[in-house]
Amino acid sequence: MVAAPHDAVEVIITKRDGGALSTSQIDWMVDAYTRGAVADEQMSSLAMAILLQGMDRREIADWTAAMIASGERMDFSTLSRGTADKHSTGGVGDKITLPLAPLVAACGVAVPQLSGRGLGHTGGTLDKLESIPGWRALLSNEEMLAQLESVGAVICAAGDGLAPADRKLYALRDVTGTVEAIPLIASSIMSKKIAEGTGALVLDVKVGSGAFMKDVDRARVLAEVMVALGTDAGVRMVALLTDMDTPLGLTAGNAIEVAESVEVLAGGGPDDVVELTLALAREMLAAAGRDDVDPADRLADGSAMDAWKAMIRAQGGDPDAALPVARESHVVAAPADGVLSRLDAMAVGVAAWRLGAGRERKEDPVQAGAGVVWHARPGDEVRAGEPLFTLLTDTPERFDRALAALEGGYDVAPAGTAFEPRPLVIDRIGRD
Amino acid sequence: MVAAPHDAVEVIITKRDGGALSTSQIDWMVDAYTRGAVADEQMSSLAMAILLQGMDRREIADWTAAMIASGERMDFSTLSRGTADKHSTGGVGDKITLPLAPLVAACGVAVPQLSGRGLGHTGGTLDKLESIPGWRALLSNEEMLAQLESVGAVICAAGDGLAPADRKLYALRDVTGTVEAIPLIASSIMSKKIAEGTGALVLDVKVGSGAFMKDVDRARVLAEVMVALGTDAGVRMVALLTDMDTPLGLTAGNAIEVAESVEVLAGGGPDDVVELTLALAREMLAAAGRDDVDPADRLADGSAMDAWKAMIRAQGGDPDAALPVARESHVVAAPADGVLSRLDAMAVGVAAWRLGAGRERKEDPVQAGAGVVWHARPGDEVRAGEPLFTLLTDTPERFDRALAALEGGYDVAPAGTAFEPRPLVIDRIGRD
Repeated sequence: MVAAPHDAVEVIITKRDGGALSTSQIDWMVDAYTRGAVADEQMSSLAMAILLQGMDRREIADWTAAMIASGERMDFSTLSRGTADKHSTGGVGDKITLPLAPLVAACGVAVPQLSGRGLGHTGGTLDKLESIPGWRALLSNEEMLAQLESVGAVICAAGDGLAPADRKLYALRDVTGTVEAIPLIASSIMSKKIAEGTGALVLDVKVGSGAFMKDVDRARVLAEVMVALGTDAGVRMVALLTDMDTPLGLTAGNAIEVAESVEVLAGGGPDDVVELTLALAREMLAAAGRDDVDPADRLADGSAMDAWKAMIRAQGGDPDAALPVARESHVVAAPADGVLSRLDAMAVGVAAWRLGAGRERKEDPVQAGAGVVWHARPGDEVRAGEPLFTLLTDTPERFDRALAALEGGYDVAPAGTAFEPRPLVIDRIGRD
Repeated sequence: MVAAPHDAVEVIITKRDGGALSTSQIDWMVDAYTRGAVADEQMSSLAMAILLQGMDRREIADWTAAMIASGERMDFSTLSRGTADKHSTGGVGDKITLPLAPLVAACGVAVPQLSGRGLGHTGGTLDKLESIPGWRALLSNEEMLAQLESVGAVICAAGDGLAPADRKLYALRDVTGTVEAIPLIASSIMSKKIAEGTGALVLDVKVGSGAFMKDVDRARVLAEVMVALGTDAGVRMVALLTDMDTPLGLTAGNAIEVAESVEVLAGGGPDDVVELTLALAREMLAAAGRDDVDPADRLADGSAMDAWKAMIRAQGGDPDAALPVARESHVVAAPADGVLSRLDAMAVGVAAWRLGAGRERKEDPVQAGAGVVWHARPGDEVRAGEPLFTLLTDTPERFDRALAALEGGYDVAPAGTAFEPRPLVIDRIGRD
C-alpha cells in the first residue's frame, strides 16, 4: 500500500493559516472526500476556512478540475450545430430559461440546459416545467443528445454522473453554514457546466435583495472568477450582472411562470422578461458564433414558440394542455393612490415559497398552482382599493405567513413622485 | 414537542459573519452537540469559525459554563484543608507535577491533580507515573477524596463524568485542524478545572518552540482569558508564563523523568526543575492562603519525599522499586569544544516521541524506558567527543528517526561566547 500523499488536517491547517493549497493537496482532498476517506467534519472545517480565508484563481481552477475529475464528462461534438448554455445564480420570478432555450434553438444554436429544483425562496426551473401535464425532467444522456439534434433545446435534470463530488459537497455546505463561499460557489457551478461539455456559456449573475449576492462588488468578483474558470477550460464565456432587487415579470410560482413564459414566446409578456430574454439570447448566439441572427425576429415569427412546443412534447408534455390552477386565492389591495415605488424581490420570493411554490427541505413536494401575482411593477400607477397582489395556494392556512412576508416589502409613493429604475442589466463581464 | 430555540446553521452563520453568539445560542449548541442533535460536521465548521473570528470574554465564559453543565461537578468542601491545583499547557521534559503535588501537600494544602496522557511531542504525567511498578491512574471519586484527606495529594486520570462535551469536542478538534483556537483551548482546560472543584489554580502557560504557544503575546492572551474564567467562577487564579524554548531538566521520557523528579524531592535535581517547582508551589500556597509556609524547607527536611512515597503507595505503586530501563541506548557526542548555546525543546520532544516515549495515536502504548537524556544545558561547557545526548529505546530501529529530529536542534558556540539565558518565568498574570 502506498502512503497517502497528504492528510486532511495538514490540508485544513494550510488554508486555516491563510496559505494557498497546492494542486496535489486539492486533488487529494476532493478525491479522498468523494471516496469517503476524508470525513464530513473535516471537509466542513476546510469549507469554513476557505470561506473566511479565500482562494486564489489557481486554487479555484484546481478545485474545479478536481470536482470535474470526480465524475463523467459529456460530449456534444457529434452535434451538427454549436451549443450554448445559460446559468442563472437564482432569483425571484426568474423564468427566463423557459422562453430563452427554445428561442436560441430557433436561432440555430443547440441549448443543453441542465437545471435544478428550487430550495428556499428562489424557484427551480424543473419545478416550473413539471406543472405542465406529462412533462418529465429525467432524460438519459442518449435521449438528451437525440433531442438536442432534433429539437435543438433540452431542459432536464443533471444526471448523477456529473461532478458527484459537487453533489456531496453541496449537501454538506447546506447544513454547515458554508454555502456563501465564492470559490466554492464558482467551482460548484463551473464544474457541472464544464463537465456538461457546452461550447459557450452565458452567466446571469443576479444582484440585489432577492439574490444570493446582495451587492454588486461581490457579484462582480463571482462573475469574474467563473468567466476565468470557463475560459481556461475552453468554454466561450460571458456574464451579465442583472438586477434582483425587484422580481422579474409579474409572477413568482410554477404554473403561473410557465404561463408568463408562453406569453413571451407568443410575442407579449412583461417588458423586463422580454428584455432580459433577448439580452441573454444575443449573448448566447454571439458566444456560439451566430450573431448574424436576431432573436427578436424569431419571437415575432413564431419559430421560438414552435421550438417550445417541440421541446415540451419531446419530454412527454402537452404544451396545449390547461395548466394547474390554485384552489384558493387572496387579493391584497393597494393601500393608497400613487406610484408603486418599490417591490422587494426577497419579500415576494418568501411569500411565494410560503404559499407552497417552493420547498423547505429537499424531499418536500411543491404546489404547481401556488405563487404570487403582482399587478403593478415599480414605476406603475396604482389606485387605492384595487388589487396589488393576488396570492395563490391550495392550502389557505398559508395565507397568513405569506402576507407577513409581503409586509414592508413594497412602497406606494404619492402620484407624480419621480421614479428612477435601476437598469436591468447592470454590468457585462467577459468576451468583447 | 417544543420547537428548538436555535438551529445549527443559524449559530454557525452568526459566528462566521463575525457576530457574538448569545448565551442561549451557546447553551443550545453545546447541549445539542453533546446529545448528538448537532452533527460533527456542523460543530467542526463552527469551531473553525471560532478559531478565525474569535470570541469575546462573555462568549468564552458562556461556552465554558455550557461545557461544565454537560457533566458532573466534584466537591472538595468536606476536606479538612484547602485545595490548590496546577495545570501546564504542556512542554518537553515537563515533569513538574511529580515533585510539585507532594511538595504542596507537605505544606498543608491538598492537591487534586487530574491529569492526562501524552499525545504528540509533549509527554503525559500519567504515562510517566505508570512507569512506577504497580501504580494505577484510575481512582473513583470516593478513593480520590479519601486519598486527598489522608495523603494530601492525588495525581489521577480525570473521570468520564467531568465535562463530557469537552471530551467529544476535543476529539473532533484534533481531526479537523481546530485545536489552536484560544477560546476553545481556554474553555477546554477551565471547564474541567472548574468542574473538578479546586479552590485555587495555578496555570503554567508554556511559551516557546516546544510549546503549543510559540509567542509570548498569544500565550499572555490565553493566560488572561483563563485567569478571568476561573476568577469569575470563584477559583483563586494565577498564571505564570514560562520558557519552553529549552526543555526542562536533563531528561524527556517516562521513567527517566520520574527518576529526575525523585532527585528533586531528595534535595538535588537540575536547577531549573527545582526553581520552577518552588515558584509554582509558592503560587499555589499563596492562592490557598498558606504563604506562611516556605516549600524550600519541606524539600530540605524530607517531608515532600515522604508525601511522594505515601501518594505513590496509596495508588498501588512501590516508590522504592527499580524503574524500567530501556534495552538499547545510543550516544551522540558533542561535535566540538565550546558552549552549548542552544537546545531546542521541539527537537528534543520529537526525538523522545520517536524513540517510543510518546504515542502517535490515542490507543498506542508508550515505552516506559524510552526517551532522551541531555548531558549539558544551554550555557554549559561541552568537549568534543564527550557525550551530549543519550537516546534510549527498546526498539533500536527508532534511533535513525530520533537522530534526524535532533539534527539542527542544538548549537555549540566557541568557548567564551557570551550566553544570555531567557528567564524561566517570563511573566505572571493574576492575583496580586
